[in-house]
Amino acid sequence: MQILTDAVEQLSEASSYTGLCHHHRQGQPLPSAGQLEQIVDLARAILFPGYFGNSSVNAQTMTYHIGVDVERLYHLLVEQIQAGLAFDVSEEGSGVESLCEEARRLAALFIGRLPEMRRTLATDVEAAYNGDPAAKNYGEVICCYPAIRAISNYRIAHELLVLGVPLIPRIITEMAHSETGIDIHPGATIGHHFTIDHGTGVVIGETCIIGNNVKLYQGVTLGAKSFPLDENGNPIKGIARHPILEDDVIVYSNATILGRITIGKGAVVGGNIWVTENVPAGERIVQMKVKDRD
Amino acid sequence: MQILTDAVEQLSEASSYTGLCHHHRQGQPLPSAGQLEQIVDLARAILFPGYFGNSSVNAQTMTYHIGVDVERLYHLLVEQIQAGLAFDVSEEGSGVESLCEEARRLAALFIGRLPEMRRTLATDVEAAYNGDPAAKNYGEVICCYPAIRAISNYRIAHELLVLGVPLIPRIITEMAHSETGIDIHPGATIGHHFTIDHGTGVVIGETCIIGNNVKLYQGVTLGAKSFPLDENGNPIKGIARHPILEDDVIVYSNATILGRITIGKGAVVGGNIWVTENVPAGERIVQMKVKDRD
Amino acid sequence: MQILTDAVEQLSEASSYTGLCHHHRQGQPLPSAGQLEQIVDLARAILFPGYFGNSSVNAQTMTYHIGVDVERLYHLLVEQIQAGLAFDVSEEGSGVESLCEEARRLAALFIGRLPEMRRTLATDVEAAYNGDPAAKNYGEVICCYPAIRAISNYRIAHELLVLGVPLIPRIITEMAHSETGIDIHPGATIGHHFTIDHGTGVVIGETCIIGNNVKLYQGVTLGAKSFPLDENGNPIKGIARHPILEDDVIVYSNATILGRITIGKGAVVGGNIWVTENVPAGERIVQMKVKDRD
Amino acid sequence: MQILTDAVEQLSEASSYTGLCHHHRQGQPLPSAGQLEQIVDLARAILFPGYFGNSSVNAQTMTYHIGVDVERLYHLLVEQIQAGLAFDVSEEGSGVESLCEEARRLAALFIGRLPEMRRTLATDVEAAYNGDPAAKNYGEVICCYPAIRAISNYRIAHELLVLGVPLIPRIITEMAHSETGIDIHPGATIGHHFTIDHGTGVVIGETCIIGNNVKLYQGVTLGAKSFPLDENGNPIKGIARHPILEDDVIVYSNATILGRITIGKGAVVGGNIWVTENVPAGERIVQMKVKDRD
Amino acid sequence: MQILTDAVEQLSEASSYTGLCHHHRQGQPLPSAGQLEQIVDLARAILFPGYFGNSSVNAQTMTYHIGVDVERLYHLLVEQIQAGLAFDVSEEGSGVESLCEEARRLAALFIGRLPEMRRTLATDVEAAYNGDPAAKNYGEVICCYPAIRAISNYRIAHELLVLGVPLIPRIITEMAHSETGIDIHPGATIGHHFTIDHGTGVVIGETCIIGNNVKLYQGVTLGAKSFPLDENGNPIKGIARHPILEDDVIVYSNATILGRITIGKGAVVGGNIWVTENVPAGERIVQMKVKDRD
Amino acid sequence: MQILTDAVEQLSEASSYTGLCHHHRQGQPLPSAGQLEQIVDLARAILFPGYFGNSSVNAQTMTYHIGVDVERLYHLLVEQIQAGLAFDVSEEGSGVESLCEEARRLAALFIGRLPEMRRTLATDVEAAYNGDPAAKNYGEVICCYPAIRAISNYRIAHELLVLGVPLIPRIITEMAHSETGIDIHPGATIGHHFTIDHGTGVVIGETCIIGNNVKLYQGVTLGAKSFPLDENGNPIKGIARHPILEDDVIVYSNATILGRITIGKGAVVGGNIWVTENVPAGERIVQMKVKDRD
Repeated sequence: MQILTDAVEQLSEASSYTGLCHHHRQGQPLPSAGQLEQIVDLARAILFPGYFGNSSVNAQTMTYHIGVDVERLYHLLVEQIQAGLAFDVSEEGSGVESLCEEARRLAALFIGRLPEMRRTLATDVEAAYNGDPAAKNYGEVICCYPAIRAISNYRIAHELLVLGVPLIPRIITEMAHSETGIDIHPGATIGHHFTIDHGTGVVIGETCIIGNNVKLYQGVTLGAKSFPLDENGNPIKGIARHPILEDDVIVYSNATILGRITIGKGAVVGGNIWVTENVPAGERIVQMKVKDRD
Repeated sequence: MQILTDAVEQLSEASSYTGLCHHHRQGQPLPSAGQLEQIVDLARAILFPGYFGNSSVNAQTMTYHIGVDVERLYHLLVEQIQAGLAFDVSEEGSGVESLCEEARRLAALFIGRLPEMRRTLATDVEAAYNGDPAAKNYGEVICCYPAIRAISNYRIAHELLVLGVPLIPRIITEMAHSETGIDIHPGATIGHHFTIDHGTGVVIGETCIIGNNVKLYQGVTLGAKSFPLDENGNPIKGIARHPILEDDVIVYSNATILGRITIGKGAVVGGNIWVTENVPAGERIVQMKVKDRD
Repeated sequence: MQILTDAVEQLSEASSYTGLCHHHRQGQPLPSAGQLEQIVDLARAILFPGYFGNSSVNAQTMTYHIGVDVERLYHLLVEQIQAGLAFDVSEEGSGVESLCEEARRLAALFIGRLPEMRRTLATDVEAAYNGDPAAKNYGEVICCYPAIRAISNYRIAHELLVLGVPLIPRIITEMAHSETGIDIHPGATIGHHFTIDHGTGVVIGETCIIGNNVKLYQGVTLGAKSFPLDENGNPIKGIARHPILEDDVIVYSNATILGRITIGKGAVVGGNIWVTENVPAGERIVQMKVKDRD
Repeated sequence: MQILTDAVEQLSEASSYTGLCHHHRQGQPLPSAGQLEQIVDLARAILFPGYFGNSSVNAQTMTYHIGVDVERLYHLLVEQIQAGLAFDVSEEGSGVESLCEEARRLAALFIGRLPEMRRTLATDVEAAYNGDPAAKNYGEVICCYPAIRAISNYRIAHELLVLGVPLIPRIITEMAHSETGIDIHPGATIGHHFTIDHGTGVVIGETCIIGNNVKLYQGVTLGAKSFPLDENGNPIKGIARHPILEDDVIVYSNATILGRITIGKGAVVGGNIWVTENVPAGERIVQMKVKDRD
Repeated sequence: MQILTDAVEQLSEASSYTGLCHHHRQGQPLPSAGQLEQIVDLARAILFPGYFGNSSVNAQTMTYHIGVDVERLYHLLVEQIQAGLAFDVSEEGSGVESLCEEARRLAALFIGRLPEMRRTLATDVEAAYNGDPAAKNYGEVICCYPAIRAISNYRIAHELLVLGVPLIPRIITEMAHSETGIDIHPGATIGHHFTIDHGTGVVIGETCIIGNNVKLYQGVTLGAKSFPLDENGNPIKGIARHPILEDDVIVYSNATILGRITIGKGAVVGGNIWVTENVPAGERIVQMKVKDRD
Repeated sequence: MQILTDAVEQLSEASSYTGLCHHHRQGQPLPSAGQLEQIVDLARAILFPGYFGNSSVNAQTMTYHIGVDVERLYHLLVEQIQAGLAFDVSEEGSGVESLCEEARRLAALFIGRLPEMRRTLATDVEAAYNGDPAAKNYGEVICCYPAIRAISNYRIAHELLVLGVPLIPRIITEMAHSETGIDIHPGATIGHHFTIDHGTGVVIGETCIIGNNVKLYQGVTLGAKSFPLDENGNPIKGIARHPILEDDVIVYSNATILGRITIGKGAVVGGNIWVTENVPAGERIVQMKVKDRD
């Protein structure tokens, strides 16, 4: 049909897809969503053995399973990290060989960080269990709680970002965002015993710094208030612009905290409010009581 | 590589995964997310024939399809309920045989409740259709509306929870939470003609009691205000701590209602507000109008 | 078992599934969620070549890939549009042949609109990149940002709705709603350079009119305040009841804007507030500052 | 690369694929191997309930399963028979509507023949069991014996061929040929209590007529000796050219019987011989004993 | 349609499926072809590491892979052996518990035999390589040669049969029969350094005894000549009725050796001949040279 | 269990898997059966458009489809050829880069040969149609005839072998062997208008030379009679040892032709015979007629 032929022709004109088309480096595919899902599944299986991955693992067979999963994780990571590195330098020069070597180095470093990541996630599980009267046991928390999925992905992605891997960390946190409605930028810094209740709608921005024992409820935003523009009117990238939450802070549902302000140690921010100034340690701020008749 | 070998060794040490590893009972796998999805799909196919499952079902072949689906649902339920029961008693004694027998009993009781569940869900569909000027017909509501998916999963999960099945009800409601952003705890009690508009971000807590003809909008929280701690500083489990919404209540978007308070019959709660005290029947409360210039 | 047999019998009685069962037209299946997902995937592959679909596409092979994808998209669309048309007229008369012919006509018209849709989506990508200091490059925006997925689905669905295709547009936007937590009704009208930051919990109602260069944050509702009922107490369908946002408007997180009001050109609506009256062009409205001690 | 571009160009020239390319009728796909496999699987599940398809079927649920399987078989058959009819008339005129109507008529007639087919296959199972000292029970014969698979496919295909369905019967017997190494042309006529031991390499030609209680061993050929050519030197299609085997004949392994000859009732043909003349009823023919030293 | 309804009714009548329907024991499914394929794949991966299963296995990770594969093989075997045992006693009494215990015992015994099986298969690979001038290396033999697949399945199946597992051994050899055209009954006894060239059409009967260093070519039958009938005219099961091939025998293509005869050590049987009497050690028998003009 | 642990230990000892384990080169997986199947499917789709691959291809869209398929075939071939090259040199030196470059070169050369391969296969289809009175049309031959599948795989594999690709050609012909029972070594040389009727059991050895217009029936072996051994008693690889069939030869079913003999132009070899000496051009040889009573 003419209409189809015309559409094909227009859509194939180079000018029509400028900026919307990925010109990949020779032999270097884009990071693959499917393989990144496998990476996350393997990491979960290693970090929480028996709850994710093979459910029949036991003390006798633990080494076999961890061994196979770590090896497979390593190979998948090498491939995806290489794809991420290639994406970033897509116009420039460095050879495939050196990308591959770098990817191997970074993947091994990541694997070496897994034991520490498990220790931190254990504190997150503990915090979720202690903070929710509806939680029946650790198992239920690990199996069911969206916060554990979102925080696991964040901690995996954050390690990769710290190692300098491009693009992939963000894809991994967006996978959790889609699954749980919790949007944690991989660049954020978050302490131990962190928990989020229910979680849908939570946003944690790129330059947030969150201490230990912090708890957020659903719909909480830790965002930027505004951002300086450069001479071309574009936002300047990479400026610290999100809140700092010190240890033991609690933020109730749908509260919005904006800008590079500090919520002091032990402060409590009530629900549905809009906070753009520092909150001193230990203080509690809440929405003014308002009851109107229409 | 040495770094991998070391990681495997550390991650396989028993002390490193205490509390994070599931020690399953001999021959008793964990509940399976994949099979629970099949259970929900089958239940939807039975409750809304033609919309879910085989779309060519008709009056002549209805019995065949319901018959096959009910049989398959029964077998899957027996398996998953048994896994749930085994999870709960994972340290203690009762034999596989008795778990299996109990699972059969509970699965049959659940199946016996399906006709009543369909009657209730019919009222939910009616409420969604009547409450939304954008709804074109019942079919669109059943096919497309996330509320129907979330409420179906809740009603299925609630029946299982009432029968005493552990873990599985929560997994089923979390599946809907992930799919729709609507988080209904299976322990909540909810009347007929219940509807939720749009729904993302809705949270309904474990001990909520919701009457008939209640309507919620997106982002509404029915949560706990605070909870008493036991002598060890841990929250006491199972205390009534969520709101009671009587018949005909409407709660607008992003409102937060906290604690064991009662929103009286026919009351209307406006959007973006924070309610921690009883609202009398018939009353309307809204956010104070505020317009500031920066 | 008797309990199963009884359940099958009750659930197969015609009276028990009235209104909940789809009686399909002979040989006309319901629209298929699986095929609609393929349609969206193909449209994304055509609109953003290399980022979605085959990642090795290049200038030499672009025509081949666009050609194959357009042809396959056309065939899938014909099938699904036909299913949508059949759904709508399910009781009435028109023959299969004429439905099929109409489906072919509409599918071709849709394909003919793809070049224009790509031009508009290019502005949305630009807006997302410029509006987010965390965005590293266009590629990251196209690959990772939920807003791009939600807006793509909306723009696809809106074209289909404008062409008069029933049911399918809503299924397509609900797919994005489930994936991203962003709920845009396909009936809304939205200009170019539109962006949504983070996005979870955003609701854009059926009769919204949104200008160019508009930016929304997560949790924003553009909803209806109330709707007139007909003589039977049911809402009257199709009345303009959602806000109009003129060019260059910004709405911050969790703000709720309700009713057929107008937010004037360049106005800024602060977070967590409830707006039910017109906002003049250029004005900034924010939540009153409230700090209480408990 | 130039070499690829050139290859694409040459391979796309119409003259290069004359006779090797299928020009399908508008909207009429080729028969699908995948769907024909499903058809065979469904037919096996209906004919041998519990052995194929759902293994938990029992007397209480038999009607449900048969009902669902028959309905699905009917729909798949309509689609594939229509594809087969369209293939045959691919150049000529008759409309899609009439093809579809004809396909429905033929599919229903085929379904109506299933009870008779089951009765005949029961005799084949009995013959296989009685004829093999290694057979432990009927179940093993039905589950494992390639002869049962090949004969089932043949009996299904033969019914379709008798109904006048083009192409599909041959695809179905070739599926069994690939699976079992037994090549039975769907045009052959075969009585009850038919069995084949081991079976690899058996060939039964298009115009064979085989009586009741016949047994063949592996490697037996019932073929054509030669065939008359037409004036263009091409073989004349459809002439009776394969052997007739009367009741109670046994043919041992690797025997070759060629031409329109008759092997009389109760005759026995020894292995590894070449038979091109009639064998009287009751006779036994064998290879001459030959022992040579090299 | 009436014709479908009638067919369903007839096909659901108990009398119509007597002997053709599997009445499974409560909760005991039939052996699953899909799971048996996994069992064979796992066994191949354990026996030939790197060629089957995970191809990146190396000396460092060998233990992990073998460990995981052995554990999974054990669990699948327990399930399938239990299904096989239940099939065999389907009318009689023994409880599920005892079947399960027996299945565990047999599965462990089978696993314990794997090292010996690998040693024997190594001799088969060696024999195939040495016997074929076309073989380039051991790797090609292991990857490509159908004989290795058929002999592997036979050796697995034979071990299971020796352990007393019903039905499953035959299914496993029939899987190889379908894949390779080589039909080895699991009951046969076969020595080391066994090889089959090309293989299609080879049949090795239930009571064959084959020595070491034996080589068969394609189309060879080692079958039964006739078998005694019992008083009802049915063949008596289990009588030794197939040939004995002593060490170092070679049988060329399409030869047929029938009955409980002995082919003596080092004898050579030429192609396309029919042997029903003993062949002395060291003798060579061939087809008489025959050249006729038609 | 101890028995499992012991088995794992024994099976992981390096000495136990010498020669049976593939030590792959770093980062170089084995050729993948799954990807080789895709390669064959793509080649079939390119060679016989509309019959294999996308069935809706037509003259307008032919270039798109061929273009996409050729590109994908090229990428898969590069990967698999590289794997094949790496397999062959697994102990030696050449770098990954040079293997990859060589793989690209060979894949492009292969693609460049596709038009010629299509021309030859067209003659094979013609020969199959003309030679079989049961063939209804070219379409049936292309869709159903195992010979076409086996010969296609052979012609693909032969091109790869001629280009010097190791291992992969044999895997590709063994795939056809498994599917059809026809075993053609990729090293054989075969002219145009080649056909095989029925085909199960056919064996064509590595050094065969087959002219034009040759026809074989099922069970025919073109094999080696014997092969000289080297000083270690191993067969000397690569010696010409299989028959030469000149143009217009016909060989009937189950005939066995062995050794480096020549069957002269137009000769006819009857079924079930054993030929080890030259047959002059135009001669017909058949089995002596033998009829014995037992």
